[in-house]
Amino acid sequence: MALINENFYKLRSSYLFPEVRRRVAHFTDQRPGLNITNLGMGDVVLPLASTVTAAMKAAVEELESPDTFKGYGPVQGYDFLRNAILEQDYASRGVQLSPDEIFISEGSKSDCGNLQELFSVDARVAIADPVYPVYVDSNVMAGRTGVLRADRRYERLVYLPCREETGFVPEPPSETVDFVYLCSPNNPTGAVMNRQQLTDWVRWAQRTHAILLFDAAYEAFIGDADLPHSIYEIDGARVCAIEMRSFSKSAGFTGVRCGFTVIPKDVMGYGSDGKGTSLHSLWSRRYATKYNGTSYIVQRGAAAVYTPAGRKETSVQVAFYMDNARIMRQKLLQMGFQVWGGENAPYVWMATKGSKSSWDFFDRMLAEALVIGTPGIGFGPSGEGYYRLSAFSMREGLEDALIRIERAFG
Amino acid sequence: MALINENFYKLRSSYLFPEVRRRVAHFTDQRPGLNITNLGMGDVVLPLASTVTAAMKAAVEELESPDTFKGYGPVQGYDFLRNAILEQDYASRGVQLSPDEIFISEGSKSDCGNLQELFSVDARVAIADPVYPVYVDSNVMAGRTGVLRADRRYERLVYLPCREETGFVPEPPSETVDFVYLCSPNNPTGAVMNRQQLTDWVRWAQRTHAILLFDAAYEAFIGDADLPHSIYEIDGARVCAIEMRSFSKSAGFTGVRCGFTVIPKDVMGYGSDGKGTSLHSLWSRRYATKYNGTSYIVQRGAAAVYTPAGRKETSVQVAFYMDNARIMRQKLLQMGFQVWGGENAPYVWMATKGSKSSWDFFDRMLAEALVIGTPGIGFGPSGEGYYRLSAFSMREGLEDALIRIERAFG
Repeated sequence: MALINENFYKLRSSYLFPEVRRRVAHFTDQRPGLNITNLGMGDVVLPLASTVTAAMKAAVEELESPDTFKGYGPVQGYDFLRNAILEQDYASRGVQLSPDEIFISEGSKSDCGNLQELFSVDARVAIADPVYPVYVDSNVMAGRTGVLRADRRYERLVYLPCREETGFVPEPPSETVDFVYLCSPNNPTGAVMNRQQLTDWVRWAQRTHAILLFDAAYEAFIGDADLPHSIYEIDGARVCAIEMRSFSKSAGFTGVRCGFTVIPKDVMGYGSDGKGTSLHSLWSRRYATKYNGTSYIVQRGAAAVYTPAGRKETSVQVAFYMDNARIMRQKLLQMGFQVWGGENAPYVWMATKGSKSSWDFFDRMLAEALVIGTPGIGFGPSGEGYYRLSAFSMREGLEDALIRIERAFG
Repeated sequence: MALINENFYKLRSSYLFPEVRRRVAHFTDQRPGLNITNLGMGDVVLPLASTVTAAMKAAVEELESPDTFKGYGPVQGYDFLRNAILEQDYASRGVQLSPDEIFISEGSKSDCGNLQELFSVDARVAIADPVYPVYVDSNVMAGRTGVLRADRRYERLVYLPCREETGFVPEPPSETVDFVYLCSPNNPTGAVMNRQQLTDWVRWAQRTHAILLFDAAYEAFIGDADLPHSIYEIDGARVCAIEMRSFSKSAGFTGVRCGFTVIPKDVMGYGSDGKGTSLHSLWSRRYATKYNGTSYIVQRGAAAVYTPAGRKETSVQVAFYMDNARIMRQKLLQMGFQVWGGENAPYVWMATKGSKSSWDFFDRMLAEALVIGTPGIGFGPSGEGYYRLSAFSMREGLEDALIRIERAFG
């Protein structure tokens, strides 16, 4: 009899974004023909940079000819892409890596979901609260939590509440933890950790032999020159941190699919006998066993992001989204909302003033302002009372949405 | 302290193909400049069909314009591809599916590795022996086996030896099993299960409430009109079978990356309380949590395979590889080798006559005939004494290789 993985039963009834889509579909079924602005999903809207599309078309042409055809590539990714990442994302900021410490993937969401496989099912996991749901749900499925309690917290999971008083930045826990997910610039709060805060985390991880899973998917949106872009800008991170990155938001790859994970060879996990093992070797094995490499066409497109023209074109896109964030932030502040983020991150985090709950605020924004955002509670219990707006939209739609928000709530 | 997943310690020291690459690199370091023919990796060599590349270039062009840009797609895949699969792979053979029973992925290897997550860590797994290593290693990592014993079998794993007497086809086990991997046409033996054999498996699964994970990655290579292409051609499979397919070999997508998995909504797993749960709903949840959809460009390329021109061009490729298989089979038989497969599958399975072991035969083929194949032992203990040759090669290289094999072994 096929015994299922009963950890699935512990999951909340629906993943956040399908529930958002369900409510929107329900609303538009009842009131069809309305022009709704989606500031909810964090999906890019600007087309790909022409340098990127030219590279992908050239790659497709290579696959047309027997002389230049490519079959299976190196499972960790092609060196042309790994070297570009190494030089321009890391060496340029004083971080030394070797190409084989970089694993190219078909997207950072998969990496975020799969990295937990390296750890014992008995390992204790800490997450910021609010948080990107993938970190939580992938650990629930793997059996590293108990059931979901009435207070919306999973048993055994360590929650690090991110409060207004600490700028929505999580602080190292006092209790023992095996690994922790950190995301900076943060989804959903838009908070960015500074050098001192990152240093505190690295020192804590070194001291407790814990691992930091550092999600830097939004690093391209950092404008402030004093803020680190990589955890490896902090001394000592090479022994305790894994970093995930994505081309989804920085180069418009949400439909193209490419990301990468960095695991320095010095990052150590431990067996129950206390013996250290390189997590790089475990992840390499996991890659060779369950993955067959990222599409050649996609890797060529990603590499084009690192050419001078590609950098220029994609930085214009990033600047456009950050102008959106600035406009959104200013207008919402003018309307009297409490607003955070949106300065070095493409997300604006706002208080749901006067609403019973963040889902209630979501429903009101949808019905009264025809705006789709994301209710804070969807990111964890400490997200209650907040609401996330994404800067990934066309300017006109955004400005119209802000006018409607002002009419409804101003 | 970061406790690792100690199940990784149970794995054999190296995944099969990296070990093959290591031995080849060692040989070519010592004897550089030799012209070696690779019949080992099962990687395609013919360039993509022009209908496929045209579709991918058009897709890239769509991503260049704001009006046709695509961000995140439906996580399970676009309907244009799912409907094409449904009609041409299934309805055309009398199998009724709904589009949402098809999950598009970036490759069948990931699906083969990930599907085990749906089952309890206490579930008992059966595999054919010899077998594609991914089925075994992904379950070892997940903790469904004990240690690797001296006889090269993992504790708790149920091995179904595939012997010459039964045409290398596995038979249902007498002991209780929760799920079983079947692969037909088979990698590595080239054996294909007939309607009666498939029916026996479906009846067994229905009777014992077990699940069949049916890997049909090579179905395009079936020439015999009496052989089923899908497990769903067998009555009753809709309640007990999951099917995996790939564009890698049938359309040359090893570097492009696309596959799919079919989970009918009637397929039931069971909780420890005996209550049934739809595996479709669990896999949907897993997809929404850990995946973000397959590249739009790649899905457009895969859909082009189903156009009249695409079908014609890719069937010419399949026929080319099957001619290779036929040539290989005939010549090796003429040389006095015992040979199986290669008739409805792109793999030829041969006995390693006169060699101490299949790795020894591998080394001899490399040193004496400059041919890379795959040692049977790499696919499991019952693979000892056998050797796999792949039909995925250019004709000239294959013919030269056969001449060298004849000189060395004939």
